[in-house]
Amino acid sequence: MEFEPVGIAHSRLSTAGAPPFQSVFSQEEGEIEIFPEFREGLKSIEGFSHLIILSCFDRATCRALIEKPLTDGVADHGIFACRHFNRPNPIGISYMTLTNVDGCRLSVTGMDLLDGTPILDIKPYVPAFDSIPDARSGWVSEEHIGRIRETSARSGHPHKICRPSE
Amino acid sequence: MEFEPVGIAHSRLSTAGAPPFQSVFSQEEGEIEIFPEFREGLKSIEGFSHLIILSCFDRATCRALIEKPLTDGVADHGIFACRHFNRPNPIGISYMTLTNVDGCRLSVTGMDLLDGTPILDIKPYVPAFDSIPDARSGWVSEEHIGRIRETSARSGHPHKICRPSE
Repeated sequence: MEFEPVGIAHSRLSTAGAPPFQSVFSQEEGEIEIFPEFREGLKSIEGFSHLIILSCFDRATCRALIEKPLTDGVADHGIFACRHFNRPNPIGISYMTLTNVDGCRLSVTGMDLLDGTPILDIKPYVPAFDSIPDARSGWVSEEHIGRIRETSARSGHPHKICRPSE
Repeated sequence: MEFEPVGIAHSRLSTAGAPPFQSVFSQEEGEIEIFPEFREGLKSIEGFSHLIILSCFDRATCRALIEKPLTDGVADHGIFACRHFNRPNPIGISYMTLTNVDGCRLSVTGMDLLDGTPILDIKPYVPAFDSIPDARSGWVSEEHIGRIRETSARSGHPHKICRPSE
Protein backbone atom coordinates (compact mmCIF):
# COMPACT_ATOMS: atom_id res chain seq x y z
CA MET A 1 0.00 0.00 0.00
CA GLU A 2 1.40 3.33 -1.04
CA PHE A 3 0.75 6.46 1.04
CA GLU A 4 1.86 10.02 0.34
CA PRO A 5 2.53 12.67 3.00
CA VAL A 6 -0.17 15.35 3.24
CA GLY A 7 2.09 17.63 5.24
CA ILE A 8 5.13 17.96 7.46
CA ALA A 9 5.86 18.68 11.15
CA HIS A 10 7.82 21.78 12.09
CA SER A 11 9.35 21.31 15.50
CA ARG A 12 12.25 22.44 17.69
CA LEU A 13 12.92 18.75 18.20
CA SER A 14 15.63 18.02 15.67
CA THR A 15 17.96 15.91 17.74
CA ALA A 16 17.38 12.18 17.82
CA GLY A 17 16.15 11.51 21.34
CA ALA A 18 14.72 14.98 21.94
CA PRO A 19 10.97 14.31 21.56
CA PRO A 20 8.79 13.63 24.57
CA PHE A 21 7.46 10.08 24.80
CA GLN A 22 3.77 10.86 24.68
CA SER A 23 2.27 13.96 23.13
CA VAL A 24 -0.34 14.20 25.88
CA PHE A 25 2.38 15.07 28.42
CA SER A 26 4.18 17.52 26.11
CA GLN A 27 3.95 21.29 26.35
CA GLU A 28 6.18 21.63 23.30
CA GLU A 29 4.90 24.01 20.64
CA GLY A 30 5.20 23.44 16.93
CA GLU A 31 3.44 23.56 13.61
CA ILE A 32 1.81 21.08 11.30
CA GLU A 33 2.06 22.36 7.73
CA ILE A 34 -0.39 20.88 5.26
CA PHE A 35 0.73 20.94 1.65
CA PRO A 36 -1.25 23.44 -0.47
CA GLU A 37 -3.03 20.77 -2.53
CA PHE A 38 -4.67 19.45 0.67
CA ARG A 39 -5.57 22.83 2.18
CA GLU A 40 -9.29 22.48 1.45
CA GLY A 41 -9.32 19.47 3.79
CA LEU A 42 -8.82 21.81 6.77
CA LYS A 43 -12.28 23.38 6.41
CA SER A 44 -14.04 23.56 9.81
CA ILE A 45 -11.07 22.12 11.71
CA GLU A 46 -10.78 25.24 13.90
CA GLY A 47 -13.62 24.18 16.23
CA PHE A 48 -11.73 21.16 17.56
CA SER A 49 -9.41 21.60 20.52
CA HIS A 50 -7.41 18.41 19.87
CA LEU A 51 -6.28 16.69 16.70
CA ILE A 52 -5.20 13.12 16.07
CA ILE A 53 -2.02 13.34 14.00
CA LEU A 54 -0.92 10.23 12.13
CA SER A 55 2.72 10.47 11.12
CA CYS A 56 5.45 8.32 9.69
CA PHE A 57 8.40 7.61 11.98
CA ASP A 58 10.81 8.20 9.12
CA ARG A 59 13.83 7.99 11.41
CA ALA A 60 12.91 4.67 13.03
CA THR A 61 16.02 2.52 13.12
CA CYS A 62 14.46 -0.86 12.36
CA ARG A 63 11.16 -2.73 12.12
CA ALA A 64 11.24 -4.77 15.30
CA LEU A 65 8.70 -7.25 16.68
CA ILE A 66 9.99 -7.10 20.25
CA GLU A 67 11.22 -4.01 22.11
CA LYS A 68 12.17 -3.08 25.65
CA PRO A 69 10.30 0.19 26.18
CA LEU A 70 12.38 2.70 28.14
CA THR A 71 9.57 3.10 30.64
CA ASP A 72 9.83 -0.54 31.55
CA GLY A 73 13.43 -1.16 30.68
CA VAL A 74 13.58 -4.77 31.78
CA ALA A 75 10.91 -6.87 30.16
CA ASP A 76 10.47 -7.55 26.46
CA HIS A 77 7.12 -6.55 25.03
CA GLY A 78 5.62 -7.30 21.65
CA ILE A 79 5.60 -4.29 19.34
CA PHE A 80 1.79 -4.45 19.22
CA ALA A 81 1.75 -4.22 23.03
CA CYS A 82 3.88 -1.07 23.22
CA ARG A 83 4.20 2.30 21.52
CA HIS A 84 7.83 2.09 20.37
CA PHE A 85 8.51 3.67 16.97
CA ASN A 86 10.42 0.69 15.56
CA ARG A 87 7.29 -0.96 14.19
CA PRO A 88 6.53 -3.11 11.11
CA ASN A 89 4.59 -0.11 9.76
CA PRO A 90 6.15 2.92 11.48
CA ILE A 91 2.93 4.94 11.86
CA GLY A 92 2.72 7.20 14.91
CA ILE A 93 -0.31 8.60 16.70
CA SER A 94 0.00 11.98 18.40
CA TYR A 95 -2.71 14.05 20.04
CA MET A 96 -1.98 17.75 19.69
CA THR A 97 -3.82 20.80 20.99
CA LEU A 98 -4.80 23.10 18.14
CA THR A 99 -4.05 26.72 19.05
CA ASN A 100 -4.31 28.50 15.69
CA VAL A 101 -5.06 27.93 12.01
CA ASP A 102 -3.30 30.18 9.49
CA GLY A 103 -3.84 29.00 5.92
CA CYS A 104 -1.97 25.72 5.60
CA ARG A 105 -0.27 26.02 8.99
CA LEU A 106 -1.71 24.61 12.20
CA SER A 107 -0.11 25.88 15.41
CA VAL A 108 -0.12 23.18 18.05
CA THR A 109 1.09 22.30 21.50
CA GLY A 110 1.83 18.73 22.45
CA MET A 111 4.38 18.37 19.65
CA ASP A 112 6.24 15.07 19.99
CA LEU A 113 7.62 14.69 16.48
CA LEU A 114 11.07 15.33 15.10
CA ASP A 115 11.32 18.32 12.76
CA GLY A 116 10.45 17.29 9.22
CA THR A 117 8.39 14.22 10.16
CA PRO A 118 5.95 13.39 7.33
CA ILE A 119 2.25 13.72 8.23
CA LEU A 120 -0.07 11.03 6.87
CA ASP A 121 -3.44 12.13 8.18
CA ILE A 122 -5.24 14.44 10.60
CA LYS A 123 -8.50 13.50 12.29
CA PRO A 124 -10.48 15.56 14.79
CA TYR A 125 -10.37 14.15 18.34
CA VAL A 126 -13.93 13.59 19.54
CA PRO A 127 -14.11 12.42 23.17
CA ALA A 128 -17.34 10.48 22.50
CA PHE A 129 -15.45 8.40 19.90
CA ASP A 130 -11.87 8.42 21.16
CA SER A 131 -11.84 8.68 24.96
CA ILE A 132 -12.01 5.39 26.90
CA PRO A 133 -11.01 6.47 30.42
CA ASP A 134 -11.58 3.07 32.03
CA ALA A 135 -9.52 0.96 29.61
CA ARG A 136 -7.07 -1.44 31.32
CA SER A 137 -3.42 -0.57 30.64
CA GLY A 138 -1.82 -4.04 30.72
CA TRP A 139 1.86 -3.93 31.68
CA VAL A 140 1.89 -0.10 31.64
CA SER A 141 1.73 0.66 35.37
CA GLU A 142 1.15 3.93 37.20
CA GLU A 143 4.88 3.97 37.84
CA HIS A 144 5.66 3.74 34.12
CA ILE A 145 3.19 6.49 33.37
CA GLY A 146 4.73 8.71 36.05
CA ARG A 147 8.16 8.15 34.54
CA ILE A 148 6.93 9.05 31.03
CA ARG A 149 5.18 12.14 32.33
CA GLU A 150 8.35 13.28 34.07
CA THR A 151 10.60 12.58 31.09
CA SER A 152 8.22 14.26 28.66
CA ALA A 153 8.24 17.40 30.80
CA ARG A 154 11.96 17.70 29.95
CA SER A 155 11.06 17.84 26.26
CA GLY A 156 13.76 19.32 24.04
CA HIS A 157 16.51 17.76 26.13
CA PRO A 158 17.93 14.61 24.56
CA HIS A 159 16.99 11.37 26.26
CA LYS A 160 19.23 8.37 26.49
CA ILE A 161 17.51 6.60 23.61
CA CYS A 162 16.08 8.01 20.37
CA ARG A 163 12.36 7.51 20.38
CA PRO A 164 9.94 10.01 18.81
CA SER A 165 7.05 8.39 20.70
CA GLU A 166 6.93 5.33 22.89
CA MET B 1 5.83 5.49 1.60
CA GLU B 2 5.14 1.82 1.27
CA PHE B 3 3.32 -0.08 4.02
CA GLU B 4 2.48 -3.78 4.17
CA PRO B 5 -0.51 -5.27 6.01
CA VAL B 6 0.42 -7.06 9.24
CA GLY B 7 -2.94 -8.81 9.38
CA ILE B 8 -6.56 -8.87 8.29
CA ALA B 9 -9.99 -8.24 9.85
CA HIS B 10 -12.52 -11.08 10.01
CA SER B 11 -15.97 -9.63 10.35
CA ARG B 12 -19.62 -10.38 9.66
CA LEU B 13 -19.71 -7.00 7.98
CA SER B 14 -19.25 -7.86 4.35
CA THR B 15 -21.85 -5.59 2.76
CA ALA B 16 -20.83 -2.08 1.84
CA GLY B 17 -22.68 0.10 4.32
CA ALA B 18 -22.94 -2.54 7.06
CA PRO B 19 -20.27 -1.33 9.51
CA PRO B 20 -21.16 0.87 12.44
CA PHE B 21 -19.85 4.43 12.21
CA GLN B 22 -17.67 4.41 15.32
CA SER B 23 -16.17 1.31 16.89
CA VAL B 24 -16.76 2.65 20.38
CA PHE B 25 -20.54 2.32 19.89
CA SER B 26 -20.33 -1.13 18.28
CA GLN B 27 -21.09 -4.41 20.02
CA GLU B 28 -20.16 -6.30 16.88
CA GLU B 29 -17.81 -9.24 17.44
CA GLY B 30 -15.01 -10.20 15.11
CA GLU B 31 -11.38 -11.22 14.85
CA ILE B 32 -8.13 -9.55 13.99
CA GLU B 33 -5.78 -12.12 12.49
CA ILE B 34 -2.10 -11.24 12.56
CA PHE B 35 0.00 -12.91 9.88
CA PRO B 36 2.35 -15.59 11.30
CA GLU B 37 5.52 -13.62 10.61
CA PHE B 38 4.31 -10.87 13.00
CA ARG B 39 3.01 -13.17 15.75
CA GLU B 40 5.90 -12.40 18.12
CA GLY B 41 4.70 -8.78 18.17
CA LEU B 42 1.63 -9.86 20.18
CA LYS B 43 3.69 -10.73 23.28
CA SER B 44 2.09 -9.25 26.44
CA ILE B 45 -0.88 -7.79 24.55
CA GLU B 46 -3.37 -9.83 26.63
CA GLY B 47 -3.25 -7.42 29.60
CA PHE B 48 -4.82 -4.57 27.65
CA SER B 49 -8.60 -4.28 27.51
CA HIS B 50 -8.70 -2.04 24.43
CA LEU B 51 -6.56 -1.92 21.29
CA ILE B 52 -6.03 0.85 18.77
CA ILE B 53 -6.39 -0.77 15.35
CA LEU B 54 -4.99 1.09 12.36
CA SER B 55 -6.46 -0.23 9.14
CA CYS B 56 -6.58 0.64 5.46
CA PHE B 57 -10.00 1.59 4.07
CA ASP B 58 -9.35 -0.52 0.99
CA ARG B 59 -12.91 -0.05 -0.26
CA ALA B 60 -12.94 3.74 -0.02
CA THR B 61 -14.46 5.11 -3.19
CA CYS B 62 -12.26 8.17 -3.66
CA ARG B 63 -9.74 10.42 -1.95
CA ALA B 64 -11.84 13.47 -1.17
CA LEU B 65 -10.87 16.72 0.52
CA ILE B 66 -14.44 17.69 1.40
CA GLU B 67 -17.25 15.37 2.57
CA LYS B 68 -20.74 15.69 3.97
CA PRO B 69 -20.66 13.32 6.95
CA LEU B 70 -23.90 11.38 7.29
CA THR B 71 -24.25 12.51 10.88
CA ASP B 72 -24.41 16.10 9.77
CA GLY B 73 -25.73 15.64 6.27
CA VAL B 74 -25.98 19.28 5.33
CA ALA B 75 -22.71 21.09 5.79
CA ASP B 76 -19.46 20.36 4.00
CA HIS B 77 -16.53 19.58 6.24
CA GLY B 78 -12.87 19.26 5.40
CA ILE B 79 -11.66 15.69 5.39
CA PHE B 80 -9.23 16.54 8.23
CA ALA B 81 -12.20 17.79 10.28
CA CYS B 82 -14.25 14.61 9.91
CA ARG B 83 -13.78 10.85 10.11
CA HIS B 84 -15.04 9.87 6.66
CA PHE B 85 -13.12 7.02 5.02
CA ASN B 86 -12.61 8.79 1.68
CA ARG B 87 -9.32 10.37 2.77
CA PRO B 88 -6.08 11.29 0.97
CA ASN B 89 -4.46 8.44 2.94
CA PRO B 90 -7.32 6.05 3.76
CA ILE B 91 -6.07 5.03 7.22
CA GLY B 92 -8.74 4.17 9.79
CA ILE B 93 -8.58 4.21 13.59
CA SER B 94 -10.75 1.74 15.48
CA TYR B 95 -10.79 1.03 19.20
CA MET B 96 -11.69 -2.58 19.88
CA THR B 97 -12.17 -4.48 23.13
CA LEU B 98 -9.84 -7.45 23.32
CA THR B 99 -11.72 -10.52 24.60
CA ASN B 100 -9.30 -13.36 23.77
CA VAL B 101 -5.89 -14.12 22.28
CA ASP B 102 -5.44 -17.45 20.52
CA GLY B 103 -2.15 -17.65 18.67
CA CYS B 104 -2.36 -15.18 15.80
CA ARG B 105 -6.06 -14.48 16.33
CA LEU B 106 -7.41 -11.69 18.51
CA SER B 107 -11.10 -11.93 19.39
CA VAL B 108 -12.61 -8.49 19.69
CA THR B 109 -15.83 -6.61 20.17
CA GLY B 110 -16.32 -3.16 18.71
CA MET B 111 -15.61 -4.42 15.18
CA ASP B 112 -16.35 -1.68 12.65
CA LEU B 113 -14.39 -2.95 9.65
CA LEU B 114 -15.54 -4.74 6.55
CA ASP B 115 -14.46 -8.37 6.32
CA GLY B 116 -11.00 -8.62 4.80
CA THR B 117 -9.88 -5.09 5.70
CA PRO B 118 -6.06 -4.95 5.84
CA ILE B 119 -4.59 -4.17 9.27
CA LEU B 120 -1.60 -1.80 9.35
CA ASP B 121 -0.79 -1.63 13.05
CA ILE B 122 -2.04 -2.43 16.53
CA LYS B 123 -1.19 -0.30 19.55
CA PRO B 124 -2.35 -0.82 23.13
CA TYR B 125 -4.87 1.80 24.31
CA VAL B 126 -3.54 3.47 27.45
CA PRO B 127 -6.01 5.95 28.97
CA ALA B 128 -3.18 8.06 30.39
CA PHE B 129 -1.90 8.60 26.83
CA ASP B 130 -5.02 8.36 24.69
CA SER B 131 -8.03 9.56 26.69
CA ILE B 132 -8.79 13.30 26.54
CA PRO B 133 -12.33 13.47 27.96
CA ASP B 134 -12.55 17.27 27.91
CA ALA B 135 -11.51 17.84 24.29
CA ARG B 136 -13.82 20.18 22.36
CA SER B 137 -15.68 18.44 19.51
CA GLY B 138 -16.03 21.28 16.98
CA TRP B 139 -19.01 20.81 14.65
CA VAL B 140 -19.75 17.34 16.09
CA SER B 141 -22.67 18.11 18.40
CA GLU B 142 -24.39 15.97 21.02
CA GLU B 143 -27.14 15.44 18.48
CA HIS B 144 -24.68 14.07 15.90
CA ILE B 145 -23.17 11.79 18.49
CA GLY B 146 -26.60 10.50 19.50
CA ARG B 147 -27.39 9.75 15.86
CA ILE B 148 -24.12 7.84 15.39
CA ARG B 149 -24.69 5.90 18.60
CA GLU B 150 -28.16 4.91 17.47
CA THR B 151 -27.08 3.96 13.94
CA SER B 152 -24.10 1.96 15.20
CA ALA B 153 -26.38 -0.04 17.50
CA ARG B 154 -28.01 -1.38 14.33
CA SER B 155 -24.64 -2.74 13.20
CA GLY B 156 -24.83 -5.49 10.60
CA HIS B 157 -27.82 -3.87 8.93
CA PRO B 158 -26.87 -1.90 5.85
CA HIS B 159 -26.99 1.86 6.15
CA LYS B 160 -27.90 4.18 3.38
CA ILE B 161 -24.31 5.03 2.54
CA CYS B 162 -21.21 2.83 2.58
CA ARG B 163 -18.88 4.03 5.28
CA PRO B 164 -16.65 1.69 7.26
CA SER B 165 -16.09 4.42 9.84
CA GLU B 166 -17.13 8.02 9.82
